[in-house]
Amino acid sequence: MVNNRQKIQFNVPEPTLRRLPWYLAYAQLELRNGESCLSSTQIAKNIAVDSSIVAKDLSYVNISGRTRVGYDIKELVTILEAFLGFTNSHKAFLFGVGRLGGALLYDNGLQQFGLEIVAGFDVKHELAGTSINRIPIHHLDNFTELQQKTGINIGILTVPIDKAQSVSEKIISGGIQAIWNFTPFRIRVPENIVVQNTSIYAHLAVMFNRLNAINERLTEN
Amino acid sequence: MVNNRQKIQFNVPEPTLRRLPWYLAYAQLELRNGESCLSSTQIAKNIAVDSSIVAKDLSYVNISGRTRVGYDIKELVTILEAFLGFTNSHKAFLFGVGRLGGALLYDNGLQQFGLEIVAGFDVKHELAGTSINRIPIHHLDNFTELQQKTGINIGILTVPIDKAQSVSEKIISGGIQAIWNFTPFRIRVPENIVVQNTSIYAHLAVMFNRLNAINERLTEN
Repeated sequence: MVNNRQKIQFNVPEPTLRRLPWYLAYAQLELRNGESCLSSTQIAKNIAVDSSIVAKDLSYVNISGRTRVGYDIKELVTILEAFLGFTNSHKAFLFGVGRLGGALLYDNGLQQFGLEIVAGFDVKHELAGTSINRIPIHHLDNFTELQQKTGINIGILTVPIDKAQSVSEKIISGGIQAIWNFTPFRIRVPENIVVQNTSIYAHLAVMFNRLNAINERLTEN
Repeated sequence: MVNNRQKIQFNVPEPTLRRLPWYLAYAQLELRNGESCLSSTQIAKNIAVDSSIVAKDLSYVNISGRTRVGYDIKELVTILEAFLGFTNSHKAFLFGVGRLGGALLYDNGLQQFGLEIVAGFDVKHELAGTSINRIPIHHLDNFTELQQKTGINIGILTVPIDKAQSVSEKIISGGIQAIWNFTPFRIRVPENIVVQNTSIYAHLAVMFNRLNAINERLTEN
């Protein structure tokens, strides 16, 4: 028999999990504005998502709205933050202290969303022993030892593309279970390993293309 | 009559534009490995995308493969880089020099993908006149003047969520045509404005959820 908690956790589709933070952001904003209630129709209207999708998404979260009144905003914020894992502290290692890796070490905002980078790893010997934003950098060779000491199972991958696959394999065999992949390389991993691809540069391609298209239209008219 | 170039630029679907950088990354890797030819089947197999999708995606790009031999890798890399806009230099302003904004100013990797951040703006008076990674920070009040001087039309949005909408409106009225939105807030913009949402924290929610689910499964077995 499947218990309720398990069912919730296995069943939440990825698009829902990606939209819930938008609802959270909007609810936080309205809470700050002094509002106390929020309907799914209001959420839908303000963030341009169909209201049936909002209602469906929120049905995965254990919160009940009242007819015609909507959700209690404070409760909605608290429950969403917990549901999304933003109130827990998840510790992570970062692999590849190059340009993007270094930049992420500077991003203290990650902690607000439940992620704490506790160490960076790189193959460059001159980086070992240094620190960025008070986060220590170690040589990649020391990863297994530090993983065993800490039990950390989340890895942020910011290595060059030609190292993405080999470093992934190394860190998975050393105990990493979830990889947040910032490289544009599609790593291949065993089925029980979680991968989230956040190739921010791919978004640039979309932006450049659309901007060109719009400006060409303007030039023609 | 619609000319060919225009047709390509208006017709490329967003999922295609997001996948093309993966193919580019893989082609760059194979090029570095000394390979000279690459088929769409090989690309498909190595990055776990259906080969019919790869072929379809590449059909938007003006490159022809030869039957059974595939694409010339060097040509594929050159054409993809140009098609995606990574070889042009697109200048951008960044709005909101907080944690994530500051981190992005440190990311010199963006330049490799055609984006150069030339200035940051913030409402904090104490930040005006400082610089991060040699990029000058100005007060937001100076934006319009600097926009008119430079003609820069890309804005990176890294302000707090409660400022996302108002800052967007301000910068759009001041000449910004494309917004790379890193906030989890869904901004509302006129139809002719390009928005790319890169809410990296939303990916954390997916990762945390999946990691929990897998570990609960392991605990049960």
